[in-house]
Amino acid sequence: MSKDKPSIPKGTRDFGPATVVKRNYIFSVIKRTFEKFGFLPLETPAMENLSVLTGKYGDEGDQLIFKILNSGDFAGKITPQDLEKGSKPLTPKISEKALRYDLTVPFARYVVMNRNEVAFPFKRYQIQPVWRADRPQRGRYREFYQCDADVVGTNSLLCEAEIILMMDEVLSTLGLDDFTIKFNHRGLLAGIAEAIGASGREADLCVAIDKLDKIGQDAVNQELLQKGFTQDAINNLQPVLALTGAIDDLLPKLDALLQNSEEGKRGLKDIRSMLSFLQSFEVKQAKLQLDVTLARGLSYYTGCIFEVKVNNAQMGSISGGGRYDNLTGMFGLPGVSGVGFSFGVDRIFDVLEELNLFPEGSQTITQVLIANFDEESMRYALPVLQALRTMGISTELYPDSTKLKKQMAYADQKQIPFVLLIGSEEMDTSLLNLRNMRTGEQQRLTLAEIIDHLQTYFSA
Amino acid sequence: MSKDKPSIPKGTRDFGPATVVKRNYIFSVIKRTFEKFGFLPLETPAMENLSVLTGKYGDEGDQLIFKILNSGDFAGKITPQDLEKGSKPLTPKISEKALRYDLTVPFARYVVMNRNEVAFPFKRYQIQPVWRADRPQRGRYREFYQCDADVVGTNSLLCEAEIILMMDEVLSTLGLDDFTIKFNHRGLLAGIAEAIGASGREADLCVAIDKLDKIGQDAVNQELLQKGFTQDAINNLQPVLALTGAIDDLLPKLDALLQNSEEGKRGLKDIRSMLSFLQSFEVKQAKLQLDVTLARGLSYYTGCIFEVKVNNAQMGSISGGGRYDNLTGMFGLPGVSGVGFSFGVDRIFDVLEELNLFPEGSQTITQVLIANFDEESMRYALPVLQALRTMGISTELYPDSTKLKKQMAYADQKQIPFVLLIGSEEMDTSLLNLRNMRTGEQQRLTLAEIIDHLQTYFSA
Repeated sequence: MSKDKPSIPKGTRDFGPATVVKRNYIFSVIKRTFEKFGFLPLETPAMENLSVLTGKYGDEGDQLIFKILNSGDFAGKITPQDLEKGSKPLTPKISEKALRYDLTVPFARYVVMNRNEVAFPFKRYQIQPVWRADRPQRGRYREFYQCDADVVGTNSLLCEAEIILMMDEVLSTLGLDDFTIKFNHRGLLAGIAEAIGASGREADLCVAIDKLDKIGQDAVNQELLQKGFTQDAINNLQPVLALTGAIDDLLPKLDALLQNSEEGKRGLKDIRSMLSFLQSFEVKQAKLQLDVTLARGLSYYTGCIFEVKVNNAQMGSISGGGRYDNLTGMFGLPGVSGVGFSFGVDRIFDVLEELNLFPEGSQTITQVLIANFDEESMRYALPVLQALRTMGISTELYPDSTKLKKQMAYADQKQIPFVLLIGSEEMDTSLLNLRNMRTGEQQRLTLAEIIDHLQTYFSA
Repeated sequence: MSKDKPSIPKGTRDFGPATVVKRNYIFSVIKRTFEKFGFLPLETPAMENLSVLTGKYGDEGDQLIFKILNSGDFAGKITPQDLEKGSKPLTPKISEKALRYDLTVPFARYVVMNRNEVAFPFKRYQIQPVWRADRPQRGRYREFYQCDADVVGTNSLLCEAEIILMMDEVLSTLGLDDFTIKFNHRGLLAGIAEAIGASGREADLCVAIDKLDKIGQDAVNQELLQKGFTQDAINNLQPVLALTGAIDDLLPKLDALLQNSEEGKRGLKDIRSMLSFLQSFEVKQAKLQLDVTLARGLSYYTGCIFEVKVNNAQMGSISGGGRYDNLTGMFGLPGVSGVGFSFGVDRIFDVLEELNLFPEGSQTITQVLIANFDEESMRYALPVLQALRTMGISTELYPDSTKLKKQMAYADQKQIPFVLLIGSEEMDTSLLNLRNMRTGEQQRLTLAEIIDHLQTYFSA
């Protein structure tokens, strides 16, 4: 056996108890919201057949897929000629499976494989880890969770409105009160391309202006020039990118700008439909912003697109999504329109930490530690231990009769809020000594009073 | 893009909504129990460094580990000589990481890496998938969940007693009422080896009698003979294997049998300690059985061992565990005693299905579907939709104005128990039509009455 100091792979993380509990708090709010909106949970395997994943994420993405080595005698299938051709053609000879890269392609695969059993419109959510062989850096991991919700099989813009409501509900419930949900429409981007005299070039336009936040307007213009946009088109684009302000002011300006573009008019119609649905609902905390510079990189979006930015924290977008019209086409089932979005849990975690928004006491798991003085007090404590647990109070008895100081340090380290001390006097009088570890206060109480006290304390 | 019919890898599964909900019910009972007993959640990455896993599961186990192909130019690191040597020596040259094979080795790795921060005794639970490149067959998968709870850093037999309590609590809470928790002790097995005249041969003895249930006593005897046990020893073993009956009857017989074995006496002392702890607790449904033929294959157990069998269902053991004294020794940290156990969720799932024990209505996620008749009724429904959700009722509005029959079929397929019908009459009178999909009964009620009715219904 290896006696080396063990380590974990670069870009992966262990989550200790305090972190798991905080993450589960975020997941539970997301889950509860998704389910309140009628989304059903789906889980797919960590491994997919390589053929399912390959070609879905572009060349760059394909290289970031973690491939799994075939079991058995894979070496026997490699010839020296294979070696010369290099890693890329060699891979499919020795690897049939890979770790999922996102939850969208597995979802599309599931829909196609189960199209006869699934009730359309199919509303599913999926909260599972994904893996990418990306260069690890601050905030970028090789294993991370995605939380996706999608509806496939309907064109209704109610779904878009509900995505905004879900983003709003999750983030409001988590205590955020200053965030902006930006939206745009791919049709608007196509219309803008037409309007500036670069008809049909919206894909390149999107890729470029998607970087506006990161590289600035000059660099974007430079990139457009390199990609063959005319200087006229670029000049025409500038006032469009500068279009900001209230939605109600923007819409008429866009009507004028896009009056000759079918795609542009489609985008404006969709946005107005979505907004009219939203007017019947109450949005809790979100600020809504129509942002014509919002592009989102993924080329498969075809309708509304969304992105969420927390205004009072240093963090990129923490949620985003949009409508796509041909998700399952990659598996031979065309014409299934869908719309979906995703929460970035790692980023939400960091934002809640930064803004100190994790609820106090949410990390308490063990609620009471019973100290262990000696054999006799330990025996006395066993029925007490069971009584507390039966009442739903998470309790442990320190398993060894060791120094009280050590046991108190254990309670401190586990952030256990109460310690129950049962010495000879307590056993004689049946009044047990309950110590509140936060305040240091001690009370002698009967077991019934202790249960009552703790239940009140923890339900508060 | 590939237009092939997509599939999933052999031995893996998609879990559709109905299954996820049932599985989550099992997980939540296990989690709740673990936490009530003071165990804290831990999560480790799916990938471990290959060096962490290799050599921990025996040669056979090593072959079942899914290895991950290195990214980048792995082919450039292979020479024709490597190819000739074969897959086994080649693997470490092109693979640095692998999927975890169980949760025990990652746990040991975590303890060693975090020994200065962890509060000992460390009680952790871990509910995550593991992967094994085993031949898939009925009930055996290549990806499956393990649910482990372990305590490391104490020798107290209170931990063993609490393991029995947790097994009892989880299975009783899930509605099982006829199951047996078998226990034994590695010291007893060592003592038996001594007593039959095969001192020090307990490892081989364990391996052989572990198969008693599967291959029968004759085949076990045959195996012992092949392994060099004398015919005398095998003859002496027969009455020992036949020792059955109540624990109180067995213990004196074992005292007599093992009077000259230090290991045997240690085992009996541990068992008596554990039982005396148990006497102070109330065991709910479990039958306890001291089974001297219980061996459990894993060689690292050193003390008490456990296994759970459901008596009224066709299923192997659904939970098991034991004490080991050198878990972290493999990573250079010796002397950390631990005891742990594990639930087999796939098997528990099948047992609950077989015995029809999943609670009725536990699969309900969406509670109300609001039917969509036309634009006007849809607009009317939007505030109703939000009001229901605000009251915690999971509700969706069918997104398109399509045939009612289709919408009803959708509700049926998703097992939505209520449909709310809002037509022109309902809008005029503000009395909405609530249909119970199970009984077919319809009631005209105000929104407030509907909320009241549903909250009562779903809290029942």
